Amino acid sequence: MAPTVLSTFATEIIIPVCAVIGIVFSLIQWFLVSRVKMTPDRNANNNNNSNKNGYDDYLIEEEEGVNDHNVVVKCAEIQNAISEGATSFLFTEYQYVGIFMVVFAILIFLFLGSVEGFSTKSQKCTYNVHQMCKPALATAAFSTIAFLLGAITSLISGFLGMKIATYANARTTLEARKGVGKAFVTAFRSGAVMGFLLAASGLLVLYIAINLFKLYYGDDWEGLFEAITGYGLGGSSMALFGRVGGGIYTKAADVGADLVGKIERNIPEDDPRNPAVIADNVGDNVGDIAGMGSDLFGSYAESSCAALVVASISSFGIEHDFTAMCYPLLVSSVGIIVCLITTLFATDFFEIKVVDEIQSALKKQLIISTVLMTVGIAIVSFIGLPTSFTIFNFGVQKVVYNWQLFLCVCVGLWAGLIIGFVTEYYTSNAYSPVQDVADSCRTGAATNVIFGLALGYKSVIIPIFAIAISIFVSFSFAAMYGIAVAALGMLSTIATGLAIDAYGPISDNAGGIAEMAGMSHRIRERTDALDAAGNTTAAIGKGFAIGSAALVSLALFGAFVSRAGIETVDVLTPKVFIGLIVGAMLPYWFSAMTMKSVGSAALKMVEEVRRQFNTIPGLMEGLAKPDYTTCVKISTDASIKEMIPPGALVILTPLIVGTFFGVETLSGVLAGALVSGVQVAISASNTGGAWDNAKKYIEAGASEHARTLGPKGSEPHKAAVIGDTIGDPLKDTSGPSLNILIKLMAVESLVFAPFFAAHGGLLFKL
Amino acid sequence: MAPTVLSTFATEIIIPVCAVIGIVFSLIQWFLVSRVKMTPDRNANNNNNSNKNGYDDYLIEEEEGVNDHNVVVKCAEIQNAISEGATSFLFTEYQYVGIFMVVFAILIFLFLGSVEGFSTKSQKCTYNVHQMCKPALATAAFSTIAFLLGAITSLISGFLGMKIATYANARTTLEARKGVGKAFVTAFRSGAVMGFLLAASGLLVLYIAINLFKLYYGDDWEGLFEAITGYGLGGSSMALFGRVGGGIYTKAADVGADLVGKIERNIPEDDPRNPAVIADNVGDNVGDIAGMGSDLFGSYAESSCAALVVASISSFGIEHDFTAMCYPLLVSSVGIIVCLITTLFATDFFEIKVVDEIQSALKKQLIISTVLMTVGIAIVSFIGLPTSFTIFNFGVQKVVYNWQLFLCVCVGLWAGLIIGFVTEYYTSNAYSPVQDVADSCRTGAATNVIFGLALGYKSVIIPIFAIAISIFVSFSFAAMYGIAVAALGMLSTIATGLAIDAYGPISDNAGGIAEMAGMSHRIRERTDALDAAGNTTAAIGKGFAIGSAALVSLALFGAFVSRAGIETVDVLTPKVFIGLIVGAMLPYWFSAMTMKSVGSAALKMVEEVRRQFNTIPGLMEGLAKPDYTTCVKISTDASIKEMIPPGALVILTPLIVGTFFGVETLSGVLAGALVSGVQVAISASNTGGAWDNAKKYIEAGASEHARTLGPKGSEPHKAAVIGDTIGDPLKDTSGPSLNILIKLMAVESLVFAPFFAAHGGLLFKL
Repeated sequence: MAPTVLSTFATEIIIPVCAVIGIVFSLIQWFLVSRVKMTPDRNANNNNNSNKNGYDDYLIEEEEGVNDHNVVVKCAEIQNAISEGATSFLFTEYQYVGIFMVVFAILIFLFLGSVEGFSTKSQKCTYNVHQMCKPALATAAFSTIAFLLGAITSLISGFLGMKIATYANARTTLEARKGVGKAFVTAFRSGAVMGFLLAASGLLVLYIAINLFKLYYGDDWEGLFEAITGYGLGGSSMALFGRVGGGIYTKAADVGADLVGKIERNIPEDDPRNPAVIADNVGDNVGDIAGMGSDLFGSYAESSCAALVVASISSFGIEHDFTAMCYPLLVSSVGIIVCLITTLFATDFFEIKVVDEIQSALKKQLIISTVLMTVGIAIVSFIGLPTSFTIFNFGVQKVVYNWQLFLCVCVGLWAGLIIGFVTEYYTSNAYSPVQDVADSCRTGAATNVIFGLALGYKSVIIPIFAIAISIFVSFSFAAMYGIAVAALGMLSTIATGLAIDAYGPISDNAGGIAEMAGMSHRIRERTDALDAAGNTTAAIGKGFAIGSAALVSLALFGAFVSRAGIETVDVLTPKVFIGLIVGAMLPYWFSAMTMKSVGSAALKMVEEVRRQFNTIPGLMEGLAKPDYTTCVKISTDASIKEMIPPGALVILTPLIVGTFFGVETLSGVLAGALVSGVQVAISASNTGGAWDNAKKYIEAGASEHARTLGPKGSEPHKAAVIGDTIGDPLKDTSGPSLNILIKLMAVESLVFAPFFAAHGGLLFKL
Repeated sequence: MAPTVLSTFATEIIIPVCAVIGIVFSLIQWFLVSRVKMTPDRNANNNNNSNKNGYDDYLIEEEEGVNDHNVVVKCAEIQNAISEGATSFLFTEYQYVGIFMVVFAILIFLFLGSVEGFSTKSQKCTYNVHQMCKPALATAAFSTIAFLLGAITSLISGFLGMKIATYANARTTLEARKGVGKAFVTAFRSGAVMGFLLAASGLLVLYIAINLFKLYYGDDWEGLFEAITGYGLGGSSMALFGRVGGGIYTKAADVGADLVGKIERNIPEDDPRNPAVIADNVGDNVGDIAGMGSDLFGSYAESSCAALVVASISSFGIEHDFTAMCYPLLVSSVGIIVCLITTLFATDFFEIKVVDEIQSALKKQLIISTVLMTVGIAIVSFIGLPTSFTIFNFGVQKVVYNWQLFLCVCVGLWAGLIIGFVTEYYTSNAYSPVQDVADSCRTGAATNVIFGLALGYKSVIIPIFAIAISIFVSFSFAAMYGIAVAALGMLSTIATGLAIDAYGPISDNAGGIAEMAGMSHRIRERTDALDAAGNTTAAIGKGFAIGSAALVSLALFGAFVSRAGIETVDVLTPKVFIGLIVGAMLPYWFSAMTMKSVGSAALKMVEEVRRQFNTIPGLMEGLAKPDYTTCVKISTDASIKEMIPPGALVILTPLIVGTFFGVETLSGVLAGALVSGVQVAISASNTGGAWDNAKKYIEAGASEHARTLGPKGSEPHKAAVIGDTIGDPLKDTSGPSLNILIKLMAVESLVFAPFFAAHGGLLFKL
């Protein structure tokens, strides 16, 4: 094996430096956002619109009410309420997370420690049999530590992301007074804070953990990287709380607020008289920012861990080539720099002048980051890898060339872009699919639902082919290592992806604040324009998340199979086949649970909102303030309580199947859940996104066709609202939560693999 | 291997005798139905209600208007229109079926003939290498003949089933004047005609084909039973037309009639002024009778063929033990006798006295047939099988005992019963799931849809466990042979299953005829009571169909794998995994197509109905007759045209995948489509069934809870109607059509296996 161009020393420098650059950049963005003052004493208004250059779009650069001090005070108040609500949710959640983390950490330690009967003696390595490896007990201890590190990193990143989001929403509203361009930059910068913070701190903590663990493990890289997989499990189990708990929270609040406010009391969305309005706005942050962040962080941590654990038994690990071993981290490091440059295109190099440019500016972000990243991957692959190396492919050695690995990463990266574009096509109201769904509202809600469901089913086709091709290419070139780096490739532009995604809920909140603060209709129109683009990017983000989840799960599945010592997973054995069919059923069971959870939680919210309207005198007239806090509390408590059954399903399935039915059946379950879950998740997200935008299409009335369907309140519009309400839990709760189902089961199986291999399959042993 | 108790001679007698008994019994039922005269000159009315014995339920035995000659004449007229419409659909369909059959027969011959380059020389057998087998060209020719036989048997049975259904509907209406018990017996007897005719003729033709083919094949049982698999393909490909074409027809007519009639013109369902009303009633026969019949006939033919082809390479085949070889046919023969006895319980031994007894009478049919069949299987297993024998399990020999095979068949049989009961629980409005869905209509259509979807997802859990346990037990005992006989076990009571199932649409039609003939409200109430029970049994039938389809497909898949010479289908190879994930996507693609097809066809119907209302003077006032024939023609043409894309997807996928990607990828596709399709099909059927019955629950207002939601026209009822309309294509088109997707792809792969194994995988060879 030829040495890599990049020296170990250079690698040791590049990774932390890139991570720190990412963190610094995120702080700079935060600082830039913080320059929008929330205190009314502003003097420097007039230097802001010096570059007004003749565009006549009224949404742009037309200052409106910037000196209205009352509005600013009101915005600050609302922002505080949202921020407090979000923080209160997070702290309540953390109490449960704390208990969960302790219990699960103990479980990990006990299960893994018991593999060799808690012996402290060194043992022969599994793959390099001439060498001695650290005892299983050490791996148990370090896996537990890695688990906690992953969980805490995810928590802190999520917490900070939410802080900035709730810090930026009112600032976006205020900037919207100066024009849509300014508001866009504020919202996007805030999203970037979240994106860079998460990507960079995830990388940095992982890197530090590897270096610290190495102090103990020394030359035993096999044990070292097995222990590191705990990091992925930690990140992913927080995603369970973020995605599932957050998903239930956001839709319980949303549906609850709408059912009483819009339908029973006939007051507009985001009306401050609605007691659930703050909970609804908190929900956007909880579900779409913290939830999405923890989901993608989990994917990122897992794909890195999967790549590392597979690489540790390749020639990299055996010959101790640190640079090549760190290839996954180098890819992520370059990703941070690429995303940094990409972000500047949105915030500094170009300026949004008209509303139509928003959507294309966001799309350009995806394209620019993908193109630049392709170059980045090429550089890393040729300087960070030897020209050829060998990997283990389920017991067989396989020679891989660096150009092949370059292609593996690229195919993942570009598949992500394709999935993004297909998702946009099926969920944006600029294209015919959503317009057809909107058109079907003419004949009522039933046809709207039928067409929407059919659209969701159809939207699965191309993404699945894209995923299948990525899998085929990367699998053929470099087996499970190829899949893991393909997943990393898809996630290499995670900072940009998250920035785009977080931008949506921030704009959504900004609109809500404008409405609640009683700002003029024009401000609301500007934030609505931002929000409409955000809706599509949210769907793209979800497509991205599920696509990467599929690749990550497969990589983890492959790593699990290696670690459990299984040589083939033959569908034609009863043990595997029943696993496969039951696994394919799990997404349905899980979705049934999460949908029911949203229903129950929303019902509680409905009761409270009704109670307030009935018991607080003067509330409907706007004379009395509703009790926002109780609604926030109800959403918080209900979401935590309601996430227990689906959470238990995810956590317990691998443990039960592995312990009682053994590793073959568990393999079947993982494969079944993966191939079936991807379809359910994509179709649910896209159906929901399409219904939402079909409704917006009718409301906006931007084309002649749209105007024949509208206006608000027409029969087709009512049908569209029904579709939108059905889509809410599909696209924001049950669909995205499936990512967690497939990933968490896979990473959990991987971590517990040695235990299942040693003691699993009790039922068949009897 | 010990000889079987039953001699070859006895076997040769028993099978055809049982089949003939089945056919004779079905003719007797037909004769009994035909005694209800459709001509007005009836004298013998008074001897019918001699056993009126004090029951005061007004629905029972209270003669009403039996002497109204006009009503009888009107009923006869309507019946004629429906019968003509159905026949016209079938004959139009047959033109396309004819072309399809010729093209496909040529394809089969060419593909299979080319395996050995159309050589007429004998070749070494695959499994028994010491023996010479007939040339591949002969297998090609006989497979083609078997294909045509299967297709024609399915066609004739379906045609006769529909004839009797359209013959019985008006008779049921007329009998309803005398009481619900009499009407029930008429409808049930007519269903039994269909059930017994199909089961018995399927068995008889298969038996005759085996004996005729044996004249040529002699001792080459390997080739003989390979050729026989064509019979399954023939049966199943007709099911494509029956299920998919019929499914589109029935829902296009139904939705089209409702959209204009109920919504735009505000006239009741089945109103004779609606031009689409005859098409709607024809649809019930086309979709639910011919479609369901061809589907189950296909399953039956396929599972028999799968069992036979696997047995031909076991010790039965090698030692030429004809009785043991015919074990699958013996099971079916006993099934006919068991179902015959079971039918008498419904029609002769007991009598329905009150409305509530209908549902339980139908449920008893399932229980009685299952219990009796368990005894029947025990007898057949102990006299028809040697105490032990060996089968091939993917290259390895495996010893199987007769009691194990008994358990294999039983586990399938009882799994069918469990699936039936679970389906009933989730779709009957006597239980809480449907009542909860009805209750959710309070908050509008959106919550109704969310709860309905969640119910469908949830209803998947137990059936999947039942299927998984059947698979595990039968697979562990007797590998793929076990699976095939488990499927046969589930289908052994097919005659009763079909009778129950066909009973539903006949009652539905009877209600329509009562409405159109202007009969009194009471008659309509009686037929509605029959119909409500029929709704649940329809859902049970669908659960049954999909459950057996899953087992059948797995058995076919196993037979395909053996025949293609694949030893393992390892998920951890890229070729298989991409097959798996793409296969899991196919049910979504297919459903998107079928749902769109219903939408397009319904739209054409809407236009025609609108046109007639607008251009025919006096139509709304009931002064002019609408042009029913044009509507029937539109439904017919649209359904045939719209079934082409989904049909092509099913037919072409195995051919393309097998030819270009090879047998491993095709295995993945089959497994993926199977495990994912089952879930989609069960959830779609049950969701639709639940919505339908939730609506009926509100309309009937039988409990206090139901009355708080109603009456017809209330807001909750409107929400329930929306759910019902959404459910129509789900439960009657896209859901059940998935059976065809998974079965037809599997049987097609099996038939073409030698070609794919010899020449497939072109893309990877390049």
